Amino acid sequence: MVFHCSATFKNYKASSTIKTGVSPTSFPRRLTSGGLPSFADSPIDYIRGMPISLSAIGRIHTPYAQAQGTPIQSSGNEDSQGTVEIFAEFAEGLKDLEGFERIWLLYSFDRASEARLIVKPYLDPKPRGIFATRAPARPNHIGISAVRLLGIEGTVLRVAGVDMLDGTPLLDIKPYVPAFDHFPVTRVGWYKDSSPAGVVADDRFEKQK
Amino acid sequence: MVFHCSATFKNYKASSTIKTGVSPTSFPRRLTSGGLPSFADSPIDYIRGMPISLSAIGRIHTPYAQAQGTPIQSSGNEDSQGTVEIFAEFAEGLKDLEGFERIWLLYSFDRASEARLIVKPYLDPKPRGIFATRAPARPNHIGISAVRLLGIEGTVLRVAGVDMLDGTPLLDIKPYVPAFDHFPVTRVGWYKDSSPAGVVADDRFEKQK
Repeated sequence: MVFHCSATFKNYKASSTIKTGVSPTSFPRRLTSGGLPSFADSPIDYIRGMPISLSAIGRIHTPYAQAQGTPIQSSGNEDSQGTVEIFAEFAEGLKDLEGFERIWLLYSFDRASEARLIVKPYLDPKPRGIFATRAPARPNHIGISAVRLLGIEGTVLRVAGVDMLDGTPLLDIKPYVPAFDHFPVTRVGWYKDSSPAGVVADDRFEKQK
Repeated sequence: MVFHCSATFKNYKASSTIKTGVSPTSFPRRLTSGGLPSFADSPIDYIRGMPISLSAIGRIHTPYAQAQGTPIQSSGNEDSQGTVEIFAEFAEGLKDLEGFERIWLLYSFDRASEARLIVKPYLDPKPRGIFATRAPARPNHIGISAVRLLGIEGTVLRVAGVDMLDGTPLLDIKPYVPAFDHFPVTRVGWYKDSSPAGVVADDRFEKQK
């Protein structure tokens, strides 16, 4: 996939032609022993503001047409079912997925408001840094949810525990693997005394009409 | 952020001007009771191929300059340390993050090869569907890793359990919260008899030189 893009982000301006996942090679970079470029020595402005272009691989259907009343995490909403529609050109990539009990959906918060760095989360009355929350109004509008996989028919996945809006563009599917995803932790910051069970969203992170 | 983009993906061609996280409004769509548009009724070609533009919020520094020899998941590599450098304009969003023992890093597999729908994973000799693996050669090159947060100094995070290449562009940080991320599962597909411990990557998913 080839994109021709020009981007303006705050005071930074970038203009480039990039292939998805491929970075421009015009800047002199240290070559590693394997001949691969490393960005470690590049000035940060080199990747700052450079557009990284993605494209939906499908679409998620849920009972939630608007943020108001939507569960805030799949864990608080194990029974809520939805479907994931994969575009036909990606169907082959679904092979072997049916063996997994749970899968990660990565998606675009396409109806979230502009990014805010300090937000008041649903579960807490105090303002928190956006990266210490799972709120949608993030600099890059990407959400992740581990949903239960109930079945696959052709290019349609039936899932349970959905917490995203109906029609949400899907970016990726990954298998949920305890060895990679299941970590015992004791320190959970401000979430310490909160539970998502029964808590639903409102319109605080939606785009202004 | 405003992008002017034209994209070509296989036989599909899209050309549009979009704001990050904002979808074009030219297509007639059902309005929900809250007045928000829903994509659920739109033909799939409406979001198919539409570019979703992101931009790095920082950069990850690790000991791994090339795929060959890099741990394949953070869980197989708890001791390997790295740093995450956040661009100054996002610093405010780090507030409250220090209280978390573990955090998700979402990043771009910027040196992965073009997408393949069937891959031979590191942990298995059989070809598998890409969405049933965590391999980097995905349609959208996004990786997720739950790393241990050791400390924060200004805009630099010290982390352990890194499994990405040095210089990898960072897209997002989310807190690791057991209520959202920690699920007991019994069916893990083809991962059933495999363990990432001690397994390292090779160059199979790297871009051709």
